[in-house]
Amino acid sequence: MLPKQSRSDVSRRTLLTALAALPAVSGALLAVPVQAQTAAADTLPSWNDGSSKRAIADFVARVTQRGGPDFVPPPERIATFDNDGTLWVEHPMYVQLAFALDRVKALAPMHPEWKTKQPFKAALEGDLKTLAAAGERGIAELVMATHAGMTTEEFQKIVMDWLATARHPRFKRPYTELSYQPMIELLGFLRTNGFKTFIVSGGGVEFMRPWTERVYGVPPEQVVGSSIRTKFQMRDGKPELFRLPEVNFVDDKAGKPVGINEFIGRRPIAAFGNSDGDLEMLQWTTLAGGARLGLLVHHTDPEREYAYDRDTPFGRLDKALDVAAMNHWVVADMKNDWKRIFSFE
Amino acid sequence: MLPKQSRSDVSRRTLLTALAALPAVSGALLAVPVQAQTAAADTLPSWNDGSSKRAIADFVARVTQRGGPDFVPPPERIATFDNDGTLWVEHPMYVQLAFALDRVKALAPMHPEWKTKQPFKAALEGDLKTLAAAGERGIAELVMATHAGMTTEEFQKIVMDWLATARHPRFKRPYTELSYQPMIELLGFLRTNGFKTFIVSGGGVEFMRPWTERVYGVPPEQVVGSSIRTKFQMRDGKPELFRLPEVNFVDDKAGKPVGINEFIGRRPIAAFGNSDGDLEMLQWTTLAGGARLGLLVHHTDPEREYAYDRDTPFGRLDKALDVAAMNHWVVADMKNDWKRIFSFE
Repeated sequence: MLPKQSRSDVSRRTLLTALAALPAVSGALLAVPVQAQTAAADTLPSWNDGSSKRAIADFVARVTQRGGPDFVPPPERIATFDNDGTLWVEHPMYVQLAFALDRVKALAPMHPEWKTKQPFKAALEGDLKTLAAAGERGIAELVMATHAGMTTEEFQKIVMDWLATARHPRFKRPYTELSYQPMIELLGFLRTNGFKTFIVSGGGVEFMRPWTERVYGVPPEQVVGSSIRTKFQMRDGKPELFRLPEVNFVDDKAGKPVGINEFIGRRPIAAFGNSDGDLEMLQWTTLAGGARLGLLVHHTDPEREYAYDRDTPFGRLDKALDVAAMNHWVVADMKNDWKRIFSFE
Repeated sequence: MLPKQSRSDVSRRTLLTALAALPAVSGALLAVPVQAQTAAADTLPSWNDGSSKRAIADFVARVTQRGGPDFVPPPERIATFDNDGTLWVEHPMYVQLAFALDRVKALAPMHPEWKTKQPFKAALEGDLKTLAAAGERGIAELVMATHAGMTTEEFQKIVMDWLATARHPRFKRPYTELSYQPMIELLGFLRTNGFKTFIVSGGGVEFMRPWTERVYGVPPEQVVGSSIRTKFQMRDGKPELFRLPEVNFVDDKAGKPVGINEFIGRRPIAAFGNSDGDLEMLQWTTLAGGARLGLLVHHTDPEREYAYDRDTPFGRLDKALDVAAMNHWVVADMKNDWKRIFSFE
């Protein structure tokens, strides 16, 4: 464990900075005046009764009430969900970063030079301090060395093989079991009400697509994420897409509304996130006419999961928390709003 | 009309080259041995009975036959369609090019310098020869001047207003009425059989999305196309996406499989095109295990529509036609395979 860091905005690319001590900050819940929507709310059994659950149920009731002032036709019921920290665990580090570090170890025998070359040496030795010091450039080097240089099919197999065996260091379970049960229910509740649910994540799109349908019920074509470039080529008469060590798109912060427009082509009416990386997505979604829902998952439960917000390198929630009340965004308090966090509890 | 051009490969960006005289080349139809699928075939009333219609019906019967050797589960039934020349008319020029020329005229009063500055002067004077000579760079200038510099919402309104009043020079009808009735039926037939239908076009994605749902039944989130960059910004407390004069993605030729992977994230099992711009999409789709369908619309009917293939600047079909037989792609002969071309016939 590294010493506590000064408060700083760590971008998605600067993945390997030190893990800060995380003060538990309880989020001030918005008081949203609503009528309880009993039938709807019953489909969210892992949510405690309270203002967050009521705000969700009220919003869905309003946009689905045919003839009502806030009715939205089904094709326009687009809901976008961040992934890391919103749908699954992102601590003690992003899952994709754990994947990259494991891949460095797996590939090391083919790269003897990594034993002495940074940032690979640090990755191999688990030297997080040196990795943190290597900064964005160092991380980009690790990602390109582990995510590029193979076909899309080969990469998909590598991801699935890794997920089948990798275990979370604290929960000792496959990462795909560490999705949040209340959010899985929320995805289903929205779909039952005619919504089309999308993932809009800063994570790599090809890291997510192989398993999002099984875990979240979200098919690959409804996953938007960051990506590296690919190149089409014929090899021995067979077409393939080869992954190149070049950034194509970073789907984070102001990139999220850009990605939503580019990949979905409709403006969402509901958006769910947990960090400053989701700020612009929630602005784009909610600062428009009509009934809109913005929700931030606030990590407030160090017992059952983690507690962090303003002072963490992974999923920092600072500015978005400041403007939540003003924008009438729901801040879901994991400790108090969620009856259970994981399906296995 | 300009003099006949020598045979040359004109890219999507080199839109304004001279229109070549178009020899009608009748496509050699593939003889595909199939059992007639009567029930299925009846849902394609604008297709004449023949090998093309039988090949489509046979393919759909095979991939939907539960327990059969070629069965494909519904979520994996992805079909991709080119737009220009495959779903609607692309002669005498791409519709989007007609739009760009009209926009230059509409914007000219705010740009007095265009009266003397090329390529705008040529666009204003309808001087196609000079426009052709301006090449890719000239066309890019026209596109950026007419497609960028406004928000995405503003651009959408401009497109819809234009489509409401613009008329095709030969058919004297709105362009959206010039979609091909047999292809509309084919889209519906595939969807009825559990397919998800996508457009994958070299045309601008934001030029298509406002109307594809109404005309083709394809919602915006299932349209992949070329794009310029957009930038998220707050203006007077309201979020907006501003269109920048920079190319973001060219969804043509080898860009089509790249775009399919990036935007859809699944490999199609059926693909439909009409030009060399669709070659790599058809390769990516059909050169894989299992039952696959590749189809080229061959423009062979100068009476009811147009006749062109190897020798045209818009929708050139040359190399893809050469390799069609080898790859078992269906070549649909518009003159002989289509009972009618437009819904208003």
